[in-house]
Amino acid sequence: MWIRNCWYVIAWEHEIPAEGMFTRRVLDEPILVYRTAGGGLVAMLDRCCHRQAPLSRGRREGDCVRCGYHGLKFDAAGICVEAPGLASIPVKTRVPTYPVVSHNRWVFVWMGDPALADPALLPDNFSCDHPDWSYKPGYVHYDTPYLLVCDNLLDFSHLSYVHESTLGGSTAIAQAIPRIEAIPRGIRVTRHVPDVAPSPFWKSFQSFDRNVDRYFVYDFVLPGTLLMQSGGAPVGQAEGDLRGGVQLHSCQTLTPETETTTHYFFQQSHRSSIDDPAVTEAIYRGLVTAFEEDREMITAQHRNIDPEEPMLLLAMDQALVRYRRLLQQAVDQERDPRATARAAA
Amino acid sequence: MWIRNCWYVIAWEHEIPAEGMFTRRVLDEPILVYRTAGGGLVAMLDRCCHRQAPLSRGRREGDCVRCGYHGLKFDAAGICVEAPGLASIPVKTRVPTYPVVSHNRWVFVWMGDPALADPALLPDNFSCDHPDWSYKPGYVHYDTPYLLVCDNLLDFSHLSYVHESTLGGSTAIAQAIPRIEAIPRGIRVTRHVPDVAPSPFWKSFQSFDRNVDRYFVYDFVLPGTLLMQSGGAPVGQAEGDLRGGVQLHSCQTLTPETETTTHYFFQQSHRSSIDDPAVTEAIYRGLVTAFEEDREMITAQHRNIDPEEPMLLLAMDQALVRYRRLLQQAVDQERDPRATARAAA
Amino acid sequence: MWIRNCWYVIAWEHEIPAEGMFTRRVLDEPILVYRTAGGGLVAMLDRCCHRQAPLSRGRREGDCVRCGYHGLKFDAAGICVEAPGLASIPVKTRVPTYPVVSHNRWVFVWMGDPALADPALLPDNFSCDHPDWSYKPGYVHYDTPYLLVCDNLLDFSHLSYVHESTLGGSTAIAQAIPRIEAIPRGIRVTRHVPDVAPSPFWKSFQSFDRNVDRYFVYDFVLPGTLLMQSGGAPVGQAEGDLRGGVQLHSCQTLTPETETTTHYFFQQSHRSSIDDPAVTEAIYRGLVTAFEEDREMITAQHRNIDPEEPMLLLAMDQALVRYRRLLQQAVDQERDPRATARAAA
Repeated sequence: MWIRNCWYVIAWEHEIPAEGMFTRRVLDEPILVYRTAGGGLVAMLDRCCHRQAPLSRGRREGDCVRCGYHGLKFDAAGICVEAPGLASIPVKTRVPTYPVVSHNRWVFVWMGDPALADPALLPDNFSCDHPDWSYKPGYVHYDTPYLLVCDNLLDFSHLSYVHESTLGGSTAIAQAIPRIEAIPRGIRVTRHVPDVAPSPFWKSFQSFDRNVDRYFVYDFVLPGTLLMQSGGAPVGQAEGDLRGGVQLHSCQTLTPETETTTHYFFQQSHRSSIDDPAVTEAIYRGLVTAFEEDREMITAQHRNIDPEEPMLLLAMDQALVRYRRLLQQAVDQERDPRATARAAA
Repeated sequence: MWIRNCWYVIAWEHEIPAEGMFTRRVLDEPILVYRTAGGGLVAMLDRCCHRQAPLSRGRREGDCVRCGYHGLKFDAAGICVEAPGLASIPVKTRVPTYPVVSHNRWVFVWMGDPALADPALLPDNFSCDHPDWSYKPGYVHYDTPYLLVCDNLLDFSHLSYVHESTLGGSTAIAQAIPRIEAIPRGIRVTRHVPDVAPSPFWKSFQSFDRNVDRYFVYDFVLPGTLLMQSGGAPVGQAEGDLRGGVQLHSCQTLTPETETTTHYFFQQSHRSSIDDPAVTEAIYRGLVTAFEEDREMITAQHRNIDPEEPMLLLAMDQALVRYRRLLQQAVDQERDPRATARAAA
Repeated sequence: MWIRNCWYVIAWEHEIPAEGMFTRRVLDEPILVYRTAGGGLVAMLDRCCHRQAPLSRGRREGDCVRCGYHGLKFDAAGICVEAPGLASIPVKTRVPTYPVVSHNRWVFVWMGDPALADPALLPDNFSCDHPDWSYKPGYVHYDTPYLLVCDNLLDFSHLSYVHESTLGGSTAIAQAIPRIEAIPRGIRVTRHVPDVAPSPFWKSFQSFDRNVDRYFVYDFVLPGTLLMQSGGAPVGQAEGDLRGGVQLHSCQTLTPETETTTHYFFQQSHRSSIDDPAVTEAIYRGLVTAFEEDREMITAQHRNIDPEEPMLLLAMDQALVRYRRLLQQAVDQERDPRATARAAA
């Protein structure tokens, strides 16, 4: 279950080479991405319209791509401009392209109707490209449907258990009741955890001499993007006084590769010791370790699910239930815009 | 095709740790087994009722299990006794448990209606725990349906060919005509093989100076358990005179893991040189070698079967045909007890 | 999609041992091939009629095969001649055999009605066994349907791209328009490529001081066999003057292993330096390298095909479209000979 009329991250910007070609599957479509000489990005179905060979097995020729099987050459608009042995090229000889845009180091493709591609729908992943913030980019591949990872991100009570010795460090996180709010195309989750030990993760890059008040405030928006402010300060410190505290911003996004596999792009930025690469590295390492904990749990969960047995919904599932409902509405809307409008009226 | 109202072996007793957890799939259900402080056994569906994560990825807390995903804690009856972040725990928050019993070193779970769980239905695997008998426990995993292994065990003519250089040693075994009898919930097979060379298997732990009269007498009972007396004595010796002979008791049982994979628990006990671990080891090694011969043949058979082509039933298939019919009746009975009763009336 | 009433190559003759057994799957049937003491070939379903175990896991006994599971023994006609433990052998106890013939080093099996097996339908693979020609035999396994490889062989425009640095060497091959003709049970393709650089492949076994006129003339016949004369001579040389030129004959054939996997037997023979094993070896190596290029492309194509998306047919697809139509007619004819005859009338 996924929507099409939205921007999906296909790559970190640095993954697309200056020359050559990059290919990755999104919503079960193989997509070829490359840069033109003028610096523009091209995203094209990685499937020749002739015999369906992957164009990525061919070669770049200027701003064009030549199929490596029978030599058809396509320009950046997907139009065939050369067909060896053909007197004339049928007009149907073209490969679909996708709207593609780079925004704060993430490369997005629009998988739905190109006429609807709207830059205003790009997420506010500002800390991916901001002079005051520092991070190291991350990627992990899941052999599970993306919605199980969405579920995970929509209920941070798992921090106390999955991430007991990394991001969590206290059962108080699971016990704290989050506030859930509707926002445009998503859900906002706010969780305060007062007077707890700093997490093992924090202690990997900073020293603490007492307990902290922790907070997590994140938006989770379609099609599967988490934008989070989190951190905390020593207990008893005046509000706004960040000395000795932690202030992080994290951008994470899920892109379905297929019905059952997922791309996960993530970072967590800091601004405290922005010139200290050791801090950036420690935060990245901590995240990689913790996200591997998630991946193991979610993969085990995925293999263990009995599709004929419903899950038991509990209080901590409020955000994920609301998000799944919102996604379902968006899917229904795409399938039949008019019927959905009538139902709403 | 399997029945549910019966005891299946899930493990050798020594496989269940004193602390910690053990997990194995039976009839395509993941099952968690552990011991309470009081020494009791617990068998529980290894699937949290909340998000279906395997409980075995969590941890023991006293006689309880805590899920490693969101921290739900279940007692030995499968009832949720703690749910972090919940004001009250819905009564539905529970995980199914299974009747479980240890009987002569085999740990059995009852996969059907718990109200019907009847210890009288446990098999008489006495030599698994008897001071006069000695053995080393065995286990092998099959990537085939369990019924193909049942078939194998119900026709010992294969000893002459599959086990020519191990358990067999003579084509006379295949040529001997077994007696087949009905017994409660099973079939009894009796086969006498007079005046043959001792098998290579026997010669691995004992010396012989002439031919022997061999016998195999076994019960094969639901849901897939073989209980066998086998052995032999030098030709010409008076009946009952066991000098220079061999006397073995074997307990073997098959538990479907999934529709297409199988657990096989086995042992072969001797009482002749009970204090000589070399004999016990030689018998165990001989069995492991021979059962690997079976596994290779049955796996090759399984891959080779054309499901649209019927098997040709021959005289040696009498026992397996009768056992499959008996199993089919038991399956039908479980599906619709009343219709089966009417049909019988 | 395949026909049955035809000869399929199951092996190179040297693959069938003088004693012992050879087994390979053809049209998704496991087939056992062995030689009798008299030098004859036997092809038999590699599946015992009793419990469907592979006969190839048993053993040869004279011109017979004994099943390794329960000891049934079958003669070269597939008739059971011994069944341990049986008073009499039911007449149904037999295994199907196939017409089998060795013809110019290829071993063929007839997969359809044995009464229709006609040696006149064997292909003219003469250079596989001719004193004037020399080659080294090749085999490659494909994880793709055989028709994708047929397609490849029916459009040599791919030589310019897939084999740019091996068999091709010039885009002129793709630009040359081939002549396509109907022949009995197949298609003849003739392609002349005047005044081009010799291919890198040719240069691996011969020297050239100028451009060449190249030609490819091949028959592609049911069920998937290519028989090709190819070569060329220095530009400007009188027709028929082969000095400094290349003259090759190639026999290649595809045999479906399953719906999605394929056996590919191939050779390319030369007669120029027949006593020089280095030339034979260089031609073989060149072919192996080039056929690996094909295999990688076709495997990538196969994985990339969207079954709901039609392929776009272009001018270079004329031969493969005609061959697929011819195959479809042959398949329809086999399924319902009378209806096909009526439709034609």
